[in-house]
Amino acid sequence: MAQKVTIPKGTRDFSPQEMARRNYIFNTIRDVYQLYGFQSIETPSMELLSTLMGKYGEEGDKLLFKILNSGDFAKKADPQHWNDQNISKLTPQIAEKGLRYDLTVPFARYVVQNRNEINFPFKRFQIQPVWRADRPQKGRYREFVQCDADVIGSKSLMHEAELVMIMDEVFKRLGINVTIKINNRKFLTAMAELVGKPELITAITVAIDKLDKIGLDKVKEELKNAGLADPDIEKVIPIIELSGSNEEKVNVISDLLGNSEASEKGKQEIEQIFTFLENYTLKNEVELDLSLARGLSYYTGCIFEVKANDVPMGSICGGGRYDDLTGIFGLKDVSGVGISFGADRIYDVLEQLNQFPDTTLQGPKVMFVNFGEKEAMYALNAAVKLRENGISAEVYPESVKMKKQMNYANQKNFPFVVLAGENEMNNASFTLKNMQTGEQSTVNVESLLKILQNG
Amino acid sequence: MAQKVTIPKGTRDFSPQEMARRNYIFNTIRDVYQLYGFQSIETPSMELLSTLMGKYGEEGDKLLFKILNSGDFAKKADPQHWNDQNISKLTPQIAEKGLRYDLTVPFARYVVQNRNEINFPFKRFQIQPVWRADRPQKGRYREFVQCDADVIGSKSLMHEAELVMIMDEVFKRLGINVTIKINNRKFLTAMAELVGKPELITAITVAIDKLDKIGLDKVKEELKNAGLADPDIEKVIPIIELSGSNEEKVNVISDLLGNSEASEKGKQEIEQIFTFLENYTLKNEVELDLSLARGLSYYTGCIFEVKANDVPMGSICGGGRYDDLTGIFGLKDVSGVGISFGADRIYDVLEQLNQFPDTTLQGPKVMFVNFGEKEAMYALNAAVKLRENGISAEVYPESVKMKKQMNYANQKNFPFVVLAGENEMNNASFTLKNMQTGEQSTVNVESLLKILQNG
Repeated sequence: MAQKVTIPKGTRDFSPQEMARRNYIFNTIRDVYQLYGFQSIETPSMELLSTLMGKYGEEGDKLLFKILNSGDFAKKADPQHWNDQNISKLTPQIAEKGLRYDLTVPFARYVVQNRNEINFPFKRFQIQPVWRADRPQKGRYREFVQCDADVIGSKSLMHEAELVMIMDEVFKRLGINVTIKINNRKFLTAMAELVGKPELITAITVAIDKLDKIGLDKVKEELKNAGLADPDIEKVIPIIELSGSNEEKVNVISDLLGNSEASEKGKQEIEQIFTFLENYTLKNEVELDLSLARGLSYYTGCIFEVKANDVPMGSICGGGRYDDLTGIFGLKDVSGVGISFGADRIYDVLEQLNQFPDTTLQGPKVMFVNFGEKEAMYALNAAVKLRENGISAEVYPESVKMKKQMNYANQKNFPFVVLAGENEMNNASFTLKNMQTGEQSTVNVESLLKILQNG
Repeated sequence: MAQKVTIPKGTRDFSPQEMARRNYIFNTIRDVYQLYGFQSIETPSMELLSTLMGKYGEEGDKLLFKILNSGDFAKKADPQHWNDQNISKLTPQIAEKGLRYDLTVPFARYVVQNRNEINFPFKRFQIQPVWRADRPQKGRYREFVQCDADVIGSKSLMHEAELVMIMDEVFKRLGINVTIKINNRKFLTAMAELVGKPELITAITVAIDKLDKIGLDKVKEELKNAGLADPDIEKVIPIIELSGSNEEKVNVISDLLGNSEASEKGKQEIEQIFTFLENYTLKNEVELDLSLARGLSYYTGCIFEVKANDVPMGSICGGGRYDDLTGIFGLKDVSGVGISFGADRIYDVLEQLNQFPDTTLQGPKVMFVNFGEKEAMYALNAAVKLRENGISAEVYPESVKMKKQMNYANQKNFPFVVLAGENEMNNASFTLKNMQTGEQSTVNVESLLKILQNG
């Protein structure tokens, strides 16, 4: 009797079928990143807690998975803390490492640590899992893969334009119609200045960020609670509700936001990005959305967010410009800009749209049915030839009942099965069955190779 | 001033250059696995400690990285254990999860947990990191990637033969000359029976396993300490020292080991595997080595080990047949056979042999020098066209000094650089520089595309 075995909550096993589909997403993103000159790096799963703590807010600190020190961890801990159940004092005494929470902070650490070897501007991508001790729920996991690309060490807005092209190209390749929303944090700064409350920039950002989720009335309420007077709120609303073409929006920005430095600089940046984009034929709509805020506090320039048009789903890609990410490790004035694709949500969108290509359903190319010892040798000999020509081939390992073998072939989604018994052996031939059409034909080994190479 | 930041000892960052080389190894192994019908799965980085503990011996339990429970971990722990510094009692009270130590136990857990959905015989491969709290030293890391393939649910020796083909093919593709050693655990059983000490099978295995490292005299000593009498040792030595061709060795096995059931069964298995291999032209030598033991206790049939011929290095691939791996989770009688490539050692071998292909040194295909605003637009327009045709292209983001831009291109190993200033713009042309030869030519966009597609 097998035991009841299970995995930690919030984590997942991935079957061959799921892996094929996940890899389809990762490979698409990777291919496009590389097309634009981004190169892959990897960082360790574990970082020192001194690197991670304090970078994600108080809540983030709690959500870090901490690794118990090896060896005699109890020795260094103060028993008094234990008796007091004082976990905030106890934790640093028994755990010095944690699992990475995102790819951004480890990247900042990487840049600072390797700054003398790095070739700036540094265009890196990174596709690796991250871990968060969040309460698991539908679509939220404790281990999930992030797919980030960042350019660091260059202030050129060409990167913003190219990141828009990358987002456009990835979703074109995946067959997902999206809207790429773009905004500039400088407009949010201008907004706070406009109402004479620059110190409320964070509160205003947080409130506006919720527009999609809670609606206009509640945002007004939040702005009020944050300390904005009613006339101020009346100034903010037309900005975040602004509609029209991108050109129309750009044209009225100065009217709505005033001619402050932040407002003008933001407008100039957006215009420059649209100019760069003139070289490129977008397949998806890029929409200037003055209500786009993005919660993360480190953004300072343009910000992006992508939503699927045909499936209700949160943002499936996002990012922006940050002027001082490595500042958290003491390396000042290194500007960067980056994006991150949400692979799990993209997976769900593709599944709902039934948009995974057939190739992700396919197993290896061909299975040879096993009719006995001699026949298996005959099949193996042919399989070797096929593999030499790059065709994935399998010989069923035992000469069990035909039905069992065909069941196996069906479940593994082989597009072709070869049946070769005594008759075929005598004629140096193979009976090839197309598993989708059910068609059978008897062919020699050269034809077999040809059909499978094209099929 | 940047802070001194660092990563946990025994872990590594991988630069773009290292990633290209690592991916070359992983992709080669993956491609060959898939050619033989193996399909990828992934399991969570964390497993419950109840899954991991007791599976790797007492020493292994200590080397598991344990994850501190989230939230108020102190609540469930007995303060008395803390005061006693009793970490063996304390650990299970504050940590219920651990990082996976290898891919074998999680795979056994996966098979047992998903046994009703799995299509047996199940041919899976898995390329994922594992973690061990070992003392770090040259070539030994606390986080490293394993590359495993296993077939589970089939006793056919065709799998052993195919795994030999896989090892042969992978090292052929990597350009490493190797010797693939093969033995059968049943011969070791026969050996223990021959000297009348079947209960000493583990001790004998462990001693013989060290032959390479400590030499014959020390092995004799170990066998003696294990409880073998001198005449017994004299029976064992000619077996593990046996030389000659594989055929010659097979022919004398019965003489040396007697006609015990284990000996005969082992011989029959080896012969069957060699028969299957007749279909395939080996590029490397397969050597029956009766001294091959492999430490891991779960092997029950054929075992494999691969060594590089031209570089002194421990085993770079190994594996074997196990008759009861899922038995640890209560699912009996599921036979399996598998191998695992040691990617880090293979990396070192390739480096020492200077055998990494040039493509792993190359950066993206082409960089456009940035001569100013208008020129950058001209370059970006061409870059967009190149990317549409699958060519990775980058425009240097700022119009800084030529020398700085060329330095960047050199360090990133672009094989080509395009220089397009006012002259070129006026003629709708591009000056293309081959970075290896230094050659320059002036071409239109169609020629540019053609050269880069072929270059």
